[in-house]
Amino acid sequence: MLERESALKGIISRGIRYVSGREKIKPEVLAEKVAEGRAVILRHGNIYLGIGEGLRIKVNANIGTSPDIVDICSEIEKLKAACKYGADAVMDLSTGGDINKIRKTIVERSPVPIGTVPVYQAVIETIEEKGALVKMDTEKLFEVIERHADDGVSFVTLHCGITLNTLERLRKSPRKTMVVSRGGAFLISWMIANEKENPLYEHFDRVMDIARKYDLVLSLGDGMRPGGIVDATDNSQIDELLTLGELTETAWKNGVQVIIEGPGHIPLNEIPANVVLQKKICKGAPFYVLGPVVTDVAPGYDHITSAIGAAVAGWYGADFICYVTPSEHLGLPGIEEVIEGTVAAKIAAHSADIARGLKNSIEWDYKMALARTQRNWQEEKKLSIDPVKFDKIHKRYKSTEKDVCTMCGKYCAIKTVEKYLGVKIITS
Amino acid sequence: MLERESALKGIISRGIRYVSGREKIKPEVLAEKVAEGRAVILRHGNIYLGIGEGLRIKVNANIGTSPDIVDICSEIEKLKAACKYGADAVMDLSTGGDINKIRKTIVERSPVPIGTVPVYQAVIETIEEKGALVKMDTEKLFEVIERHADDGVSFVTLHCGITLNTLERLRKSPRKTMVVSRGGAFLISWMIANEKENPLYEHFDRVMDIARKYDLVLSLGDGMRPGGIVDATDNSQIDELLTLGELTETAWKNGVQVIIEGPGHIPLNEIPANVVLQKKICKGAPFYVLGPVVTDVAPGYDHITSAIGAAVAGWYGADFICYVTPSEHLGLPGIEEVIEGTVAAKIAAHSADIARGLKNSIEWDYKMALARTQRNWQEEKKLSIDPVKFDKIHKRYKSTEKDVCTMCGKYCAIKTVEKYLGVKIITS
Repeated sequence: MLERESALKGIISRGIRYVSGREKIKPEVLAEKVAEGRAVILRHGNIYLGIGEGLRIKVNANIGTSPDIVDICSEIEKLKAACKYGADAVMDLSTGGDINKIRKTIVERSPVPIGTVPVYQAVIETIEEKGALVKMDTEKLFEVIERHADDGVSFVTLHCGITLNTLERLRKSPRKTMVVSRGGAFLISWMIANEKENPLYEHFDRVMDIARKYDLVLSLGDGMRPGGIVDATDNSQIDELLTLGELTETAWKNGVQVIIEGPGHIPLNEIPANVVLQKKICKGAPFYVLGPVVTDVAPGYDHITSAIGAAVAGWYGADFICYVTPSEHLGLPGIEEVIEGTVAAKIAAHSADIARGLKNSIEWDYKMALARTQRNWQEEKKLSIDPVKFDKIHKRYKSTEKDVCTMCGKYCAIKTVEKYLGVKIITS
Repeated sequence: MLERESALKGIISRGIRYVSGREKIKPEVLAEKVAEGRAVILRHGNIYLGIGEGLRIKVNANIGTSPDIVDICSEIEKLKAACKYGADAVMDLSTGGDINKIRKTIVERSPVPIGTVPVYQAVIETIEEKGALVKMDTEKLFEVIERHADDGVSFVTLHCGITLNTLERLRKSPRKTMVVSRGGAFLISWMIANEKENPLYEHFDRVMDIARKYDLVLSLGDGMRPGGIVDATDNSQIDELLTLGELTETAWKNGVQVIIEGPGHIPLNEIPANVVLQKKICKGAPFYVLGPVVTDVAPGYDHITSAIGAAVAGWYGADFICYVTPSEHLGLPGIEEVIEGTVAAKIAAHSADIARGLKNSIEWDYKMALARTQRNWQEEKKLSIDPVKFDKIHKRYKSTEKDVCTMCGKYCAIKTVEKYLGVKIITS
């Protein structure tokens, strides 16, 4: 039975039990959230991952080859690094080399659920076979989607919400950054050249068939996500969202679980409205944000611009954060950027969990505060999000006093005041 | 005439003219803000810096020696790096080596206003002369404050708001992290050991005399800033803020300009309340925040945890951001961490300027969006916050197509869609 259908019947499935055990949420409550579409359960072999209301905010790391850089070993290293630093899911966005083999290897080796964007491969094979992306036929597209599902990916991004109407809105309200979603760009180019409706929208019933067959979670993509903050929250972005809201209900009726993807590039002050809008229009379906970056001027630091956006989005209700690495807008990330991107996204997710009042989420910070007060450096290292970096900085210099760091040395505030205030009064 | 007194008379001073010319604010409007205490003008030789309402959010970088690491050349390098990457002010927090010489050299070499925390030196000299910080006499404290002013520092942090009453509040509502402000820890230790009121509070009239003599801007410090998010927005923090609000009015009556310092460690969801509270209690005086970091679990990444907090604080009204480097909680920062900290704080400040709707602040992002659409990499580099890092990542790999990056290579979304949508429709 499909995860959603079983939840609708109030059954406590294996997935529900697995996730509720890890997230300190009652199985009955989680099943109800899944039935309402407010949470989804991804399955990866014997592993399950819950995303949505009442659950810890999850982080996704994108990996994969590009036409210019194909090194499967390096991608496996990125997979391992992302998981080591806390990624809850990984998307294989490979567009170079033997894409089938790469995907199968990643799915096989991954300890976490894998997602893909099948339209990439459908377009790439079309170009190889027929010379132009606009020659892609609908059969090819659906065959590739099913191929990915059959290989065991847990979720797929499908840009079902871009329609001819969306393009009409784009014409009436032009943008500075056009279209920056690859999947969106492929489909829009196809639609314009062929003067036809988006096949993923027109044949949404076929999407349903595949999703039902494999109990595949749909991540409804945002092909019209803005590529610059000047274009944020505009007509074509919101038009696509409206369609995604309608498709969400169709999917739910078909027993299919849905996540909604969101921007992208949004100024800080528009993030709350974007989250509220998504939650309202998509009836509480989990929100999967890419960043968002809150300024465009910091290439090389987009793990930071996006951590700011993701923390605020999470605080207001986003459920799933796609990391952005320092390489974004500059090139394919290397392993160091994968680590930096993952840590930055985890920081955003955890800060937002605390802001949302997720039960027990502040425990971690409580323990760190206590370890700092006690100047228990071993414990601080153990508790830190990246113990390797902790050591690298902490051990670079050495203080003459053994229990303090070189920032203040013998003038350590904590140590100074301890003598006079007394530890007991404070830490009791 | 004092800057504040001249503003109160509606005079357009040299400082007002200088700042208004750079910030696209009318001199009359700025003079009114200064008269109301909602903005301050710092002076450094012939240079002026405005901080407060209606102005671009400013960034401060802390540098300086520690007891364990004394290298004046390295500190000068940090000064240069911080300014190169956009710091608007720098604080010299030196506590090791020849502190007088270091301060004088930094003031002399700096292109931006310099701030200090005189109580550090007063305590260090007391320990050298008398063996214990609690033996510090009031004369020493005020002599050092005047020495710093006489050396040409533009602003000083003075923790005038911690009182015996604050300590009583702390006893009634104990904390996990005690006191983490160095200046706060010194004064509290002195107060407890001597059973006396904070000399900076008790003799605030002497603070006024020095500030008037040198037209020194006071940055009223928060000795009770929380050292962990579990302690944020607690009784002792707010008690100190209430006193700072009272002292602000006293300073204003004396023609002295005031900035208020704020935490520290605050969970995301409490930041808006902290800003609203400061602005209300301190009658709109500029708010100078240290971070705040929004989670304690990421030592090595506190430039990110604080960029999140600073962006949100700025959005809600904070005016001046003190950077936090990746070394925070681990050791004295090196030059690399100074750069990372400065860039992260600049990102936060700029994102917040946009969120607050500061006139023209989004222009920079607009230009970057256009350069990206045109795939004008030279322009993108020129516009980026750190062109060195831009090159480092962008040039690591090379795409076979000349105008795209290695993230998508020949499948570049912007390039793909351009053929079909037409550039003109979009960028016109």
